[in-house]
Amino acid sequence: MSSSAVTAPFNRDALEQVLKRRFFFAPAFELYGGVSGLFDYGPPGCAFQANIVDTWRKHFILEEDMLEVDCTMLTPHEVLKTSGHVDKFADWMCKDLKTGEIFRADHLVEEVLESRLKGDKAARGIKVEEEEDEDKKKRKKKVKEIKNVKLDDEVVKEYENILAQIDGFSGPQLGELIVKYDITNPSTGGKLEPPIEFNLMFETAIGPSGNLKGYLRPETAQGQFLNFNKLLEFNNEKMPFASASIGKSFRNEIAPRAGLLRVREFLMAEIEHFVDPEDKSHPKFNQVKDIKLRFLPSGVQESGSTELIEKTIGEAVSTGLVDNETLGYFIARIYLFLLKIGVDTNRIRFRQHMSNEMAHYASDCWDAELQTSYGWIECVGCADRSAYDLSVHAAKTGEKLVVRQPLPEPITVEKFEIEISKKKFGPKFRKDAGSIEKWLLERNQTDLESLGNELTANGKIVIKVPGVEGETELDTELIKIEKVKRTEHIREFTPNVIEPSFGIGRIIYSIFEHQFWSRPEDVDRSVLSLPPLVAPTKVLLVPLSNSAELKPIVEKVSNVLRKNQIPFKVDDSSASIGKRYARNDELGTPFGITIDFESLKDESVTLRERDSTKQVRGSYEDIIDAIKQVTYFGSSWAEGTAKLTPFESQSTDA
Amino acid sequence: MSSSAVTAPFNRDALEQVLKRRFFFAPAFELYGGVSGLFDYGPPGCAFQANIVDTWRKHFILEEDMLEVDCTMLTPHEVLKTSGHVDKFADWMCKDLKTGEIFRADHLVEEVLESRLKGDKAARGIKVEEEEDEDKKKRKKKVKEIKNVKLDDEVVKEYENILAQIDGFSGPQLGELIVKYDITNPSTGGKLEPPIEFNLMFETAIGPSGNLKGYLRPETAQGQFLNFNKLLEFNNEKMPFASASIGKSFRNEIAPRAGLLRVREFLMAEIEHFVDPEDKSHPKFNQVKDIKLRFLPSGVQESGSTELIEKTIGEAVSTGLVDNETLGYFIARIYLFLLKIGVDTNRIRFRQHMSNEMAHYASDCWDAELQTSYGWIECVGCADRSAYDLSVHAAKTGEKLVVRQPLPEPITVEKFEIEISKKKFGPKFRKDAGSIEKWLLERNQTDLESLGNELTANGKIVIKVPGVEGETELDTELIKIEKVKRTEHIREFTPNVIEPSFGIGRIIYSIFEHQFWSRPEDVDRSVLSLPPLVAPTKVLLVPLSNSAELKPIVEKVSNVLRKNQIPFKVDDSSASIGKRYARNDELGTPFGITIDFESLKDESVTLRERDSTKQVRGSYEDIIDAIKQVTYFGSSWAEGTAKLTPFESQSTDA
Repeated sequence: MSSSAVTAPFNRDALEQVLKRRFFFAPAFELYGGVSGLFDYGPPGCAFQANIVDTWRKHFILEEDMLEVDCTMLTPHEVLKTSGHVDKFADWMCKDLKTGEIFRADHLVEEVLESRLKGDKAARGIKVEEEEDEDKKKRKKKVKEIKNVKLDDEVVKEYENILAQIDGFSGPQLGELIVKYDITNPSTGGKLEPPIEFNLMFETAIGPSGNLKGYLRPETAQGQFLNFNKLLEFNNEKMPFASASIGKSFRNEIAPRAGLLRVREFLMAEIEHFVDPEDKSHPKFNQVKDIKLRFLPSGVQESGSTELIEKTIGEAVSTGLVDNETLGYFIARIYLFLLKIGVDTNRIRFRQHMSNEMAHYASDCWDAELQTSYGWIECVGCADRSAYDLSVHAAKTGEKLVVRQPLPEPITVEKFEIEISKKKFGPKFRKDAGSIEKWLLERNQTDLESLGNELTANGKIVIKVPGVEGETELDTELIKIEKVKRTEHIREFTPNVIEPSFGIGRIIYSIFEHQFWSRPEDVDRSVLSLPPLVAPTKVLLVPLSNSAELKPIVEKVSNVLRKNQIPFKVDDSSASIGKRYARNDELGTPFGITIDFESLKDESVTLRERDSTKQVRGSYEDIIDAIKQVTYFGSSWAEGTAKLTPFESQSTDA
Repeated sequence: MSSSAVTAPFNRDALEQVLKRRFFFAPAFELYGGVSGLFDYGPPGCAFQANIVDTWRKHFILEEDMLEVDCTMLTPHEVLKTSGHVDKFADWMCKDLKTGEIFRADHLVEEVLESRLKGDKAARGIKVEEEEDEDKKKRKKKVKEIKNVKLDDEVVKEYENILAQIDGFSGPQLGELIVKYDITNPSTGGKLEPPIEFNLMFETAIGPSGNLKGYLRPETAQGQFLNFNKLLEFNNEKMPFASASIGKSFRNEIAPRAGLLRVREFLMAEIEHFVDPEDKSHPKFNQVKDIKLRFLPSGVQESGSTELIEKTIGEAVSTGLVDNETLGYFIARIYLFLLKIGVDTNRIRFRQHMSNEMAHYASDCWDAELQTSYGWIECVGCADRSAYDLSVHAAKTGEKLVVRQPLPEPITVEKFEIEISKKKFGPKFRKDAGSIEKWLLERNQTDLESLGNELTANGKIVIKVPGVEGETELDTELIKIEKVKRTEHIREFTPNVIEPSFGIGRIIYSIFEHQFWSRPEDVDRSVLSLPPLVAPTKVLLVPLSNSAELKPIVEKVSNVLRKNQIPFKVDDSSASIGKRYARNDELGTPFGITIDFESLKDESVTLRERDSTKQVRGSYEDIIDAIKQVTYFGSSWAEGTAKLTPFESQSTDA
């Protein structure tokens, strides 16, 4: 049940209080004052997370027979240098040299312009919505004072245009905006240094000598790429196939904020689907093609708008909005997964990356964004990383990372080939022979053609080999370069990679927002309507009284629940039944079983549903069967309880 | 089935080949030459690990209603300074300044003395066992050459005595042994520097300023301690209770070796059971008291022996060998868990830590050690950490980490109390007033008694307060110290902690060794007899031929397996049935279903058991039911297949 349908406006403070009080999660090291961007999950948060991971495993890994791996987080420098993270995995930060404060440049521009727009609205007498006020309160710490200053209509348009593409600016562009719009330290008005790059990886040293520099992985993907050959072999060389990994990654955020939405250590679930670059069709695309989704294409954003386009994923692929079937298949599967675990269907959109914000490896990318009181939040990325990663690692290590497939018909190809006279190479170049040979063998067809031409024209070529002193001269005694015709039986190619990548913590927080509401009759009675499948505890067992008479039947029901592996809790405290249920509504517990003195006679019990507070009565065995059907086998409450008797008499929720 | 019972001596090389070839695990970053001590788990290793974790969760967390938490790995300096890890979590290393090589001091002494003992045996003409030879081969890289030199009987005794307590020496003691026995760099004979301490934590910096020093956690325990108050509240203040955590920890080993047994990043599962220090009884101890275990007490080791003592855990606790029931209960539960997941009962022992090797926080500690070709390996620690951790964090942060329980009867206590005249303190001591007051309030009863006596005798006390210049004089105008009688209704205490701590990777490797064997009729056909409960894949589905006729029934059986959430693979390759099964015996797949042309007529299939290669026949529904019973509900093969027909005709394993 979504809050919007039934109750008062969403109240973030109330949600945060519940999450903290019931220890869903809490700032880590709070006893020591906390470290921003680090959070611990308490028992209900941990169980919710485990259930989401379990659902993910079944929805993706089991369904598609993916190969799950568990790779190390510690990663040596060289690997992340090759992948591009050492050079490019950075955010832009501005320092206030006077106070020592550090700001993330894009967030700073965003916050200042947004608050100016709000001040403008106020000056124009336009009412700002409740929800935004809530947000403003939080932000006040940063932006000292929102001045109610009316802006020129022209300026308002400029600001709105900038905000629509705030994720797309480079550091120097942000620096220009800061100068142009006179953006300063919001709390002091002090001048800021121009933005500089800050690499987001945590650095450490591996081994006792301190010489091997390493990082904590910023994503789980690299480990999967490096194991490509082993995975392909494990899959009996069959293509396409996917690997998957669930584990922690780390990003040293400049200024973590917004609770679980921007943290320094987080759980990721990533899929690397390896596909033939010449055939990105997907055999199961038909199963999803009619699913309707809301898209925000890059072109729309670049024109300064955020208007959504609704169409089926089938249309999106056939019109070229989404590049290919495999990318489209995963976008649809991501959507189905999000619905299954409790995301509100009305608060999902798929936003395409603009060309200037795309990660350094991606050739196309769509984010599943979820709407929260902090705005639209990127929760799942779905990128086509092309052949980037496998290519760079292969080039760096000299190991092939390719698929070799027998051709249906042999083909004839013409290729430049190089022939090296090894006998003469060794004596002539001694210790450099290996380097020169390696350099030559690494040349591509274009290089070989021009080297061949040079060799034919001059009888020699002069090359510069890295690591070899001076220039190297090679004549036709030493090498031959010729165009050769060959019949090939094997096609060799580097697969492309489609990568759905999930930030579990962000999804978890968004679901909390989407499923939190208060009972209209009592705003203090809040409910977390987590789907039974992922709720931390499925059943609360409530004996009507603490009487010893009821204990054996409580024990009996407990045993059956345990045997069926249904997570449950017993609450035999002296609080009223209504109060005991209310406490568990906050925890998202979907079902309650009440055991009363009737139960002693006929082993019947009452089953209560959290969202509707509806009740039914039946034998405890039938009741537990209904719980199983609704929780694990996708039945609705009406279907699962069809055979049970509606129960109205005692209003236990009073 | 344990290898020792049926076949040739264990062959580590053969096991390693299988584990690598079938991608159970592999050195991480192998493409880049690898980083020692880092390993990736491939699909079967990852599934095996996930199943062990799942079993752990059910065996411990669900069974005891423990509170699972998920805390961050990044940990600020201050927390680990307080816990003692910054100062004491170190190993001793020796450097060879000439070659730059670094050795772990205790391992070096152990290896050199062991190889000298082997050389001595050889010189005396005593045959060294096969298994040890295997080990020697591996070690040869380090210890260049084992010289067959006969040692004096006296020296042999000394060496054996040292090796029996090798885990107990301090750095300086190791330094003395190195000098006394002339231990040098084994590969060059070069002289080594005296041992120095090397902290095993990976260091990093949190946040963009670089000022907040942090480490990767060396254990998951600290996060649980820091959340103690929240957990106690979540548990409605009820004692005793346990928290639990499953996650990666990190140790920057000096010289990782022995594959998965000593790694730099590893999965831990840890329980912190919080208990009343005055009552360490356990309500369920009776359920385990008759379990027989093999113990290696500290006293036996200190006398230079490694002889095991066999007794029930009940006797061990009642005779005081194991300190208390709760510690004993967990030791027995650890044993049962290890059996469940495939550890050989004859290769488990519980070794007590000697007083000089005990971790800095422990008051008693037993390790579950598993015997492998590398010797006895610590796989689970079970320590009584007393009140150490909660006390140090409380003292450092000034936050109470205690349990408050109403006393059944109020009690009268006499206590020294201090009364400070705040009015006079401020003007007199100005900026130091706070420090002096804090110092006074932190005194314990013994301090207060002697300060009180001094005050009575001299009319003043003279104290030295850290941070306050010079000495501070306090007279009876400023403070009063008196013995007061009070009635107390609440008992306040710091719980003790019993901590079972599991190294999952070490357990996994030990199980591989315990369950690996070769068929007597063909040494190349090796089998991993993993218990069905934890085996990566439960069933291999094998159609007799690739004929299109068989496809629908394969699909039918697949669907039922999927519906029952039984992990399975289909192998419809053209290899012989025997070959297909042999490939999966290596992977530890316990069951095979053969679909043949008979199946088309009556939907009957054949079920094959991996270890015995026995077969039974029945309807595929009955067969799948039997698989479920044996895999998940603890039935034996005989029980689970009692209703099915033994099947002998075609020997599919030929």
